[in-house]
Amino acid sequence: MKIDVLTLFPEMFDGVFGTSILGKAQEKGIVSLRAVNFRPYAGNKHNTVDDTPYGGGGGMVLKPDPIFAAVEDLLGGQVKEAVGSEPGQSMDEQPEKTAKPPRVILMCPQGETHTQKKAEELAREKHLIFICGHYEGYDERIREHLVTDELSIGDYVLTGGELPAMTVIDSVVRLLPGVLGNETSAVADSFSTGLLEHPHYTRPLDFRGWKVPDILLSGHHANIEEWRRRESLRRTLERRPDLLEHAELTAKEKEWLQSLRDQTASRRI
Amino acid sequence: MKIDVLTLFPEMFDGVFGTSILGKAQEKGIVSLRAVNFRPYAGNKHNTVDDTPYGGGGGMVLKPDPIFAAVEDLLGGQVKEAVGSEPGQSMDEQPEKTAKPPRVILMCPQGETHTQKKAEELAREKHLIFICGHYEGYDERIREHLVTDELSIGDYVLTGGELPAMTVIDSVVRLLPGVLGNETSAVADSFSTGLLEHPHYTRPLDFRGWKVPDILLSGHHANIEEWRRRESLRRTLERRPDLLEHAELTAKEKEWLQSLRDQTASRRI
Repeated sequence: MKIDVLTLFPEMFDGVFGTSILGKAQEKGIVSLRAVNFRPYAGNKHNTVDDTPYGGGGGMVLKPDPIFAAVEDLLGGQVKEAVGSEPGQSMDEQPEKTAKPPRVILMCPQGETHTQKKAEELAREKHLIFICGHYEGYDERIREHLVTDELSIGDYVLTGGELPAMTVIDSVVRLLPGVLGNETSAVADSFSTGLLEHPHYTRPLDFRGWKVPDILLSGHHANIEEWRRRESLRRTLERRPDLLEHAELTAKEKEWLQSLRDQTASRRI
Repeated sequence: MKIDVLTLFPEMFDGVFGTSILGKAQEKGIVSLRAVNFRPYAGNKHNTVDDTPYGGGGGMVLKPDPIFAAVEDLLGGQVKEAVGSEPGQSMDEQPEKTAKPPRVILMCPQGETHTQKKAEELAREKHLIFICGHYEGYDERIREHLVTDELSIGDYVLTGGELPAMTVIDSVVRLLPGVLGNETSAVADSFSTGLLEHPHYTRPLDFRGWKVPDILLSGHHANIEEWRRRESLRRTLERRPDLLEHAELTAKEKEWLQSLRDQTASRRI
């Protein structure tokens, strides 16, 4: 997979792209990661990439031309051009391409919220291009005529699209075959149950008087599995009851959850 | 504000802590950011920070002792110790401290989902300590006896807590007084309405045949404001109707939204 990130701050990516899973995935040749500065694509004497908004108001807006030019340079050809009075129709009139076009993903607060399902979808692509703005808004024509996806990572305000792009890239690359070793893929599996993880304990057995629960020392694997599953259910009920709606539960588990809910309710009375 | 991050991959933070808003906030002396490797706190000959889980199963678990030791070193004293048979009671028996204790934040998928409100809450603190795991789970005693908060940035699986910690830190630091200039705080304001932003346009007026809407060239400020507000409402209705439940809307705006909803419904029939 090839991943290009368009940004005004490529140096932000150095530490993240070179380390841990992303660094190893590149060494293994599974993914190629590039942070590309789109300022040189401005094509004007001061390399200006932003300008004041039409209609007035504060803030600056990222101009369409540098970002279109940068994406087209990465693709080796022009994306599209308006034909007649109706923009958006021109795509149909282009000659059919044999290769699947890459996904062009705009990182922005107005985008769809990133999910594990979206990460799985993006992991099936050959080439991803991320566009990161910084402080400023994007000219609407980028949104309308260049990008295939708009993504946000959550409902909080950030300085730019760089950290969100790194986050999405990490969630995607770790899903590519060969990236994770056996020891780590197990962790991923525990997420696929749709529940929060049960508590973990390791040495020392007694840390400052806080001991590991006896059940984990019993050697009785079926009991341990049942305890873990119940603790997982209990934690999910307490912290993220919304996840229980989509979790696969046995009849017995549903009954046990209901008894937990009843206990909590009676304690409140 | 002082922010310390405990991590096994401090080099991941170099590019992010040194650049843009976070870099400038440090230069201005508003915040001090440190990424601290907790491996040297292991206190055993191989600097081992993880071990196999009690009760069996795959994956590794981060041991409590190195992380407790690292946090206590940052604080200049021991956090707490179990007294008698009931852990969790010891806090009350400690001598009262004059300084407010720092927040110790565990980045983990089981945590509360980060929000703008949480960022505002954390921005009022003097000292934040973030703990980042990597692949592995945390020994439960870290969760029970060391941390004050558990945070997640969203429902997707990541390799470690590093990118989430950077994300939370960015959302917090940009709120500190003096960090953002006037030109950027305007952008933040547009979020505080609780709606998605309206479209922005800048030069060129005509880009490949796609033109800036006439209204923005009219010079009629009241009409432009109304257009922007309506586009903001329309986009929020289309993409994030959940946000409308908490947005402050005038009676006229509610009416207009209802007419938009009716149009969409009748188009479906």
